[in-house]
Amino acid sequence: VTGWFEEQQTADMRLQLRYTRILHRQRSRYQDVAILETAQFGRMLALDNVIMCTEADEFVYHEMLVHPALCACPRPRRVLIVGGGDGGAAREVLRHPQVEEVVVAELDEEVVAACREHLPFTAAAFDDPRLRLRFGDGAGFVAQAEDGAFDAVVVDAPDPVGHALPLFQPAFHAACRRVLAPHGVLVVQSDSPFVMPAVTRAIRTSLRSLFPVVRTCWAVVPSYAGALWTFTVATEAADPALPPGAPRASALAACRYWRRELHVASFALPAFVDRLLGAGEGAGAAGHAGAGGGAASS
Amino acid sequence: VTGWFEEQQTADMRLQLRYTRILHRQRSRYQDVAILETAQFGRMLALDNVIMCTEADEFVYHEMLVHPALCACPRPRRVLIVGGGDGGAAREVLRHPQVEEVVVAELDEEVVAACREHLPFTAAAFDDPRLRLRFGDGAGFVAQAEDGAFDAVVVDAPDPVGHALPLFQPAFHAACRRVLAPHGVLVVQSDSPFVMPAVTRAIRTSLRSLFPVVRTCWAVVPSYAGALWTFTVATEAADPALPPGAPRASALAACRYWRRELHVASFALPAFVDRLLGAGEGAGAAGHAGAGGGAASS
Repeated sequence: VTGWFEEQQTADMRLQLRYTRILHRQRSRYQDVAILETAQFGRMLALDNVIMCTEADEFVYHEMLVHPALCACPRPRRVLIVGGGDGGAAREVLRHPQVEEVVVAELDEEVVAACREHLPFTAAAFDDPRLRLRFGDGAGFVAQAEDGAFDAVVVDAPDPVGHALPLFQPAFHAACRRVLAPHGVLVVQSDSPFVMPAVTRAIRTSLRSLFPVVRTCWAVVPSYAGALWTFTVATEAADPALPPGAPRASALAACRYWRRELHVASFALPAFVDRLLGAGEGAGAAGHAGAGGGAASS
Repeated sequence: VTGWFEEQQTADMRLQLRYTRILHRQRSRYQDVAILETAQFGRMLALDNVIMCTEADEFVYHEMLVHPALCACPRPRRVLIVGGGDGGAAREVLRHPQVEEVVVAELDEEVVAACREHLPFTAAAFDDPRLRLRFGDGAGFVAQAEDGAFDAVVVDAPDPVGHALPLFQPAFHAACRRVLAPHGVLVVQSDSPFVMPAVTRAIRTSLRSLFPVVRTCWAVVPSYAGALWTFTVATEAADPALPPGAPRASALAACRYWRRELHVASFALPAFVDRLLGAGEGAGAAGHAGAGGGAASS
């Protein structure tokens, strides 16, 4: 079995990848779940024909989703991941030695089962004794969690359509804030400002209405539409753009994209992204955007 | 006329873009020259079906090809661009107020003619009185130029195949060094370390055999295969990673990707790129790669 997998990335753009094996293809209760062996990117998980992660570049997305956020949290003991059924975000969270418990609140049990069978490079994290899986609606899980239950919440949601749509709403972000401990941190994958600028901006606007400190970092994920990907980090006081100290950094020495230097650099936004995000924040943001000429602003 | 343009980015990966108009399509003496109006990226130049630039993201490539390099040159009065038939690199060079003359040494006169007609956002640079066009083989032009004739040489070549192949050889880089003034700077577009790691590494190795200072910066160009793109900058002494002073930076205030903060940040390489490039440089490089944990290395 070989052929070409096609993702319709937007109405006007398609990515095609040659595959050599279909490892899994089944409709779950929620979506079409496919795992293919591709020639360019290795093993790949696609949900409803949208690439979620590939062996060749998932490290970029998962490292940059997790590490800038978790390094802003002095002691991330309890971490909640909303989504993250491939296990990649959990793998990165578990690098932090302070972590005692990771809860992965994934909608679709069949995604986890398929990844456990075919994507060991991410799903091996599910075997860690510190990890707990909770299947079901992520927003519902957060709504029922206790106040201050988590030191960090990582929102690893797919694009804002269908089942994932509530995870992009301000009400959900407010619920995430409620379940955070006082020194907690929230990070939300916030899409590509090339392809979905309104999404990147809406997430930042939502978080800024809730948290005193909101910063956006970015990375390049070649298999995602637009490739330039953003992550929006919110805290009560800590600045996520500050690099971690040597002990934290040494725990991350095996990373393949994240480096201490890149941690800092990833908060320096391209000019058009800086303008996009500065423009969306009203009066409070004008000063922020205006300061961009002097210090690294994001 | 509408349809889908397809670039076979690698043997295993294709990008398809919907187009609404074919503005130009003709075989020149050297290659197939096409300019299409695409729905996702606006107007696009493709040579032999490989995307050279698009209206939506050419600014990323051209700004990051030119500005980190030119800012490392105290007075870039005479600048040579090898390739650059769309005019985008020249447009960025001309932002630097010190520039008195830009020579664009482009192989294919028909590329320039088509861009002048259909890509004014880049080709308007050709109307600047400081610009001179020289058609023909870029390596031949450099071979015949006088010693020390240029303050900066910008190698804006397509992928290392066919006519462009000589522009990726150490002999060509040595010729570029010969035509540079003592405080001159050379920058070479050095492809994507995701898709063409051997090319990125070979260019760095070649420049390191010739210049005391070689640094690599990067940017994300969504329409290019791999998206993560590198630019390798070589000088006799100046460090290209240092940000420019306020007067230089203010001349670049209209940039859409480059910012002073991003200039610095773009030299912080992702870990896998840092390792790729460090590993390619033999004994001298081991110390360089080893220093990566402390200071920003690239």
